[in-house]
Amino acid sequence: MQKVNFAIVGYGGMGSYHARTLMPTESERLNITGVYDIDAARLEAAKSEGFETYESFEAILADEAVEGILIATPNDSHKELAITALRAGKHVLCEKPVAMNVEELDEILAVAKETGKTFMVHQNRRWDPDFLMVRNMYQQKPIGDIFQIESRVQGANGIPGDWRHLKEHGGGMLLDWGVHLLDQLLWLVESPIKSMNVDFSYVLGDPVDDGFFTYITFENGVRAIVEVGTSNYTKLPRWYVKGTEGTAKIDDWDLSGEMIRATNAEGVSAPTPIQAGVGLTKTMAPPSEEAMEKIAFPSSEADFIPFYQNVYEVIREGAEPIVKNEEVRVVLALIDDMFKQEAI
Amino acid sequence: MQKVNFAIVGYGGMGSYHARTLMPTESERLNITGVYDIDAARLEAAKSEGFETYESFEAILADEAVEGILIATPNDSHKELAITALRAGKHVLCEKPVAMNVEELDEILAVAKETGKTFMVHQNRRWDPDFLMVRNMYQQKPIGDIFQIESRVQGANGIPGDWRHLKEHGGGMLLDWGVHLLDQLLWLVESPIKSMNVDFSYVLGDPVDDGFFTYITFENGVRAIVEVGTSNYTKLPRWYVKGTEGTAKIDDWDLSGEMIRATNAEGVSAPTPIQAGVGLTKTMAPPSEEAMEKIAFPSSEADFIPFYQNVYEVIREGAEPIVKNEEVRVVLALIDDMFKQEAI
Repeated sequence: MQKVNFAIVGYGGMGSYHARTLMPTESERLNITGVYDIDAARLEAAKSEGFETYESFEAILADEAVEGILIATPNDSHKELAITALRAGKHVLCEKPVAMNVEELDEILAVAKETGKTFMVHQNRRWDPDFLMVRNMYQQKPIGDIFQIESRVQGANGIPGDWRHLKEHGGGMLLDWGVHLLDQLLWLVESPIKSMNVDFSYVLGDPVDDGFFTYITFENGVRAIVEVGTSNYTKLPRWYVKGTEGTAKIDDWDLSGEMIRATNAEGVSAPTPIQAGVGLTKTMAPPSEEAMEKIAFPSSEADFIPFYQNVYEVIREGAEPIVKNEEVRVVLALIDDMFKQEAI
Repeated sequence: MQKVNFAIVGYGGMGSYHARTLMPTESERLNITGVYDIDAARLEAAKSEGFETYESFEAILADEAVEGILIATPNDSHKELAITALRAGKHVLCEKPVAMNVEELDEILAVAKETGKTFMVHQNRRWDPDFLMVRNMYQQKPIGDIFQIESRVQGANGIPGDWRHLKEHGGGMLLDWGVHLLDQLLWLVESPIKSMNVDFSYVLGDPVDDGFFTYITFENGVRAIVEVGTSNYTKLPRWYVKGTEGTAKIDDWDLSGEMIRATNAEGVSAPTPIQAGVGLTKTMAPPSEEAMEKIAFPSSEADFIPFYQNVYEVIREGAEPIVKNEEVRVVLALIDDMFKQEAI
């Protein structure tokens, strides 16, 4: 196995994440040759953490040992860095969101095609165990056909970092967590979108969205809610999923929650009415005990190989990428539509 | 105190609720003279439960002791019964939804005006303790200005009863629980609606909606979600409310839940990043302990008099009705809009 040599451009949160992740394991198939950041302090940090550093982006391109670059810079710089690197004969692994809009992405993809180099986007949350539980639920149908998927990520710490507060760098939460959640959803449902309504949140006073709410219907009948919030002091579950035979709720990344299925047992007794406010309700009372059962969540394991391994196999063995550029493009087109709908 | 004599038309779920509620208390200001139902079995039930019964609707109108009628029949019959009763010189207390559409309501209101008789709708869930907690939160601002209100009622028993499954009788969940939740919301927010998107659910195979989801924005900036479901085996909280200083969650009608407020303390430490799926997140990590505090829910008491007492005071003393017909009309117009949006 000949490792693929990557240099990292941008040593912020994600750049250092990649560096840490790829450094220690001998078995890792990608190798970090060094790091570059335009901020001298970040470059110093990389050095003190044991990484080789480059003096400039051009120095990376000039390093013949480098086969690929890993872009982890602010979003507005992805396009130029990617195109320059591809033209210099390097593969490119790019952080999400891949670019500021579909137009930019199409420019990148044209150059990738022209140069024959690999271009892949780090949509790593396809490997999140909570998402994989939902994906396995969707495919294995323990609660029947899933027709409603609600995916929420809620915090109370505001927008992170520095450039994420600025529009010109592609800041805001839709382009941060939003990209992940939409990528998961669209990859899961595999159906064209029929309708989409979005509402952005600006309660924290930033010029970029501090969260958003979107309701999406798909051609195949599935409904989805995707929501990101950064001023939520108490949270709704990470996932809420309805199937034709039951309902699942995953509360948090610790995979706590429950999945309840209708037993469809014969002769179950009617629910006992409960007091609901000033009235009684039978409709909204818990079904009788025989009418439902708690079942175990499906596995949270991926039935596909890890991201970095896939990158290696794509580059070395011509394998299919798990994160396909056409998929990334559909997500970005949806995000473009969301910003357009907001502008109306 | 001279009680107001009411006869009940329709002895189903709500008719018998009114009968039970009004019968036993000597202090109650409304008195039930008797019950009529077109279904002989229901009439027999009323009789066996100790109520006088009428042989026909006309017999009620002919009874000079009867000052008002309480309509608790299927929705499509409200208009004709109400108009006939008003013209016969009776007051009318009507179950929700008041009518099939605004056009019908306007016919009723014209006759009420013409006859000078009282016409009031039983929007009793304005007195629900969970709603009153939210209302007191909205007005007293313990978590700042509330800008997001999510109101959900979720069951797993399908659509209740018989005629509620039929379109021609005004069945479906929007016209059942939906009317309550929208009435609460619009009465609370007191602002014109700016935009509304709705999606109906038909997963149970009925010809009427078995639930719906709507996202509403108001001119004053408040956002709201109202959702009713009847195939939800595990539930989201009854209320989820975001304010500029904190967040509240009321899980259920038992008023369990929590309200968390930002302390805005100086020098609070940054949140500790948590593992979220395959990545770390600081944005979505819990804020540090000093950054937030759990506070007590506001009171769940009404600062206004009970419904039946208000009916009495409106009829006997010319008091202002708490449930105003203009408010009921705005809710019904919104529901008309929802059905129209669905038909597009």
